[in-house]
Amino acid sequence: MSYYARNTSSRSTLTQVSVNRCFDGEQHYYRHQSSSTNTPMTFSIYLPDEALAGRLCPAVLYLSGLTCNADNVTHKAHFQQKCSELGMIFIAPDTSPRSDAEGTIDVADDERFFVGQGAGYYVNATQAPWSEHYQMQSYIVDELYDLLRSEFAIGSIGIMGHSMGGHGALLLGFTYPSKFISVSAIAPLCAASESTWGEVAYQAYFGDDKDQWDAADASKVITKAGRQYSQILVDQGGADDFYNQGELQPEKLQAACQAAGQPLTLRYQAEYDHSYYFIQSVIGEHIEHHWRMAQLN
Amino acid sequence: MSYYARNTSSRSTLTQVSVNRCFDGEQHYYRHQSSSTNTPMTFSIYLPDEALAGRLCPAVLYLSGLTCNADNVTHKAHFQQKCSELGMIFIAPDTSPRSDAEGTIDVADDERFFVGQGAGYYVNATQAPWSEHYQMQSYIVDELYDLLRSEFAIGSIGIMGHSMGGHGALLLGFTYPSKFISVSAIAPLCAASESTWGEVAYQAYFGDDKDQWDAADASKVITKAGRQYSQILVDQGGADDFYNQGELQPEKLQAACQAAGQPLTLRYQAEYDHSYYFIQSVIGEHIEHHWRMAQLN
Repeated sequence: MSYYARNTSSRSTLTQVSVNRCFDGEQHYYRHQSSSTNTPMTFSIYLPDEALAGRLCPAVLYLSGLTCNADNVTHKAHFQQKCSELGMIFIAPDTSPRSDAEGTIDVADDERFFVGQGAGYYVNATQAPWSEHYQMQSYIVDELYDLLRSEFAIGSIGIMGHSMGGHGALLLGFTYPSKFISVSAIAPLCAASESTWGEVAYQAYFGDDKDQWDAADASKVITKAGRQYSQILVDQGGADDFYNQGELQPEKLQAACQAAGQPLTLRYQAEYDHSYYFIQSVIGEHIEHHWRMAQLN
Repeated sequence: MSYYARNTSSRSTLTQVSVNRCFDGEQHYYRHQSSSTNTPMTFSIYLPDEALAGRLCPAVLYLSGLTCNADNVTHKAHFQQKCSELGMIFIAPDTSPRSDAEGTIDVADDERFFVGQGAGYYVNATQAPWSEHYQMQSYIVDELYDLLRSEFAIGSIGIMGHSMGGHGALLLGFTYPSKFISVSAIAPLCAASESTWGEVAYQAYFGDDKDQWDAADASKVITKAGRQYSQILVDQGGADDFYNQGELQPEKLQAACQAAGQPLTLRYQAEYDHSYYFIQSVIGEHIEHHWRMAQLN
């Protein structure tokens, strides 16, 4: 294993984009060529001093919501202080493959914000033109997962996310329970295949094959997978417009966990909306949740 | 006094732009027509629940650095958690007057980032074309100050800032010591009239009148004002390029405080740079500093 070192010249696959000291650790950005998406991909990673010194630390992989890239959560969610305190690593990948500014990589897109670039749903598309680059599930659970474990001082990995990324965390956490030690979500989309955003995206990515839709629906996957974690933590704001419009459907997650015998802490937080102001208000408790689960295992 | 209420219809001067629940309080944005700058101005204000309930809370006025508006610190500095814990109000004004998108307000500008829009230096310009709108000192210490005290449940007010805004906090704090209860700064420009950025800006705003330059230089003002606060807190990162290039000159602040008999805690923080990653790493301690000073008075 080649744990992080200040001298990155020996790295063949990762290009370090930036390093900033932040609390007792460093916020890093990396870029690498992905064989899953066949595009360059960028992710951010916060490394507490323990990890910089090469000591194995628990990590949490954070999946962002629609329209976001790695920057939004890294700039606005303020996970760094809690990760510094606990000695947690925090990784934020992008939400989809991207065309590049130079125009040399042409990734399919759609002008609606819930399909295409910024809306990868953490699934592997099977329909043209999407299938060429939209292989986000393989990217996250195989390629990035292995890369992180080989390049950084990572012990166990938990998974969390917000909105579409909350769906991704639930979906990947219950599709690949051997890979993740803990799962949590903030204002997740709970049943993508039965939401107005997800229906459009899944029609594009999977066509008419409803088996693929089902296999990419978090609540259906949880129902089928059964109990996989001693506890999962989900926060939902009561003043969240998307929740109040019926898009997020936490009741389907609740029913799935009930059917699966999966313990779920689903907290309704009155007054909070869907924004990063809500994320920052609860992310410290989510990081603590993942940290506790890592200690127990 | 008309303290903040959810029903803002009775407000004549403030237009509420947004409200987001955040920790145990709310992040608000307001827009108002400024008689000082003769433009609309936008500021953000974090109100802990105590203030929302009408109980007087101590406040800190945060002055941002070059190129910033109210968003940068509000999104990236993460003061909300500490302000929620302590019951502090946090106000972030813009750094200059602005032209509007519709083109109906034409504010003088310069393509260099250290003069013009985004670079008001918290001074009152006396030279055309700048003098027409660049009246940021009057805006902050008279107009906004009075507006805040009349519209929100504010007790005492401290002042802090970053970079150009750190200079502004030192300058205004020592020019108007009766208005502020406490002063602190993160990576401040310490002697604007003798810095490469400030020399260009002050030539534009003040012309050749060096008395005006001196009256707008924080270190010179402190030397003349003498001891005004029981303690001021300043943090400077050791890996800050602007510091290492000689732009910030904390040694001039140190000499000014020495000459004035003004107690100064000047902390050099190795490895930290000039970014919001540094600001977020120390802002909690700055808020605690202002909170303590408010308790003592």
